[in-house]
Amino acid sequence: MLQECPIRIIGIDPGLRRTGWGIVETQGNALRFVASGTVTSDAKYDLATRLRQLYEGLGSIVHEYRPDEAAVEQTFVNKDAVATLKLGQARGIALLVPSIAAIPVAEYAPNAVKKAVIGVGHGDKKQIHMMVKVLMPKASFDTDDAADAIAIAICHTHHRQSAQARMAFAGG
Amino acid sequence: MLQECPIRIIGIDPGLRRTGWGIVETQGNALRFVASGTVTSDAKYDLATRLRQLYEGLGSIVHEYRPDEAAVEQTFVNKDAVATLKLGQARGIALLVPSIAAIPVAEYAPNAVKKAVIGVGHGDKKQIHMMVKVLMPKASFDTDDAADAIAIAICHTHHRQSAQARMAFAGG
Repeated sequence: MLQECPIRIIGIDPGLRRTGWGIVETQGNALRFVASGTVTSDAKYDLATRLRQLYEGLGSIVHEYRPDEAAVEQTFVNKDAVATLKLGQARGIALLVPSIAAIPVAEYAPNAVKKAVIGVGHGDKKQIHMMVKVLMPKASFDTDDAADAIAIAICHTHHRQSAQARMAFAGG
Repeated sequence: MLQECPIRIIGIDPGLRRTGWGIVETQGNALRFVASGTVTSDAKYDLATRLRQLYEGLGSIVHEYRPDEAAVEQTFVNKDAVATLKLGQARGIALLVPSIAAIPVAEYAPNAVKKAVIGVGHGDKKQIHMMVKVLMPKASFDTDDAADAIAIAICHTHHRQSAQARMAFAGG
């Protein structure tokens, strides 16, 4: 079997005020932290300008780190329609930016992210952050959103590996 | 008083499957139809790709017609959160594209659009389309979404004129 090349993944936790991003590299079973951070939009501007701020911020991250694959959390808000619409708008930008750069984008439900990181499909943010630190001791994050984004990227490394294993099993 | 220059406005009615657009020009009290159409995304692709299709489609319209101002409908879906999130994502693209091109983007609630076109804040799509034809006999549209987009652009011509009148009254 040939040595696999490292695959660089960007995880994105979208939000209009703060969009977290985290970049990890996976090679075989090894997992390496690359970088993480938060892209923000300024609430004093109108919505179109704020979406442009997220677009430009995420765009410069993608340009700098050149990830091979992207993973975005599939969030559903249980609040009012206004909050859901707001999140949807930010999420549209989070999905668009990697797609423009010809990066395939996977989507994961919050419980899939929890399952990948904590081992079960439920748990609070604190547990996720603790497990991110356990799985990736060198990971650093400035906000909860950045930690969540790293967890989303880790989730994607699990799923893409099992997809590859299935393909190999099927004689690929 | 100096002769005003014509102002070109793009109205956008966002939707993931179909995003309508309509371009009108306003000069003083004159209103002129320029073009309209529908940008579609292909449901057989994943969400990120579909949002990129809307982004590229709207981007080429903005590039071709170079509007001075943009107006986007402020839709609220009364359906489930999934539908609202979907609309939000398409709406994010509709707001982003003019913003990237440094075009100011105004937002109007559906009843403001109805009030501008029909004269009252309620009425069905059929009435809107009929009034678009009355206000702008040369207007042509291929879909309901394109007709709605023209109505949104007309709505913006009303509001920007009253905003200018207020500024003039205030001694601007």
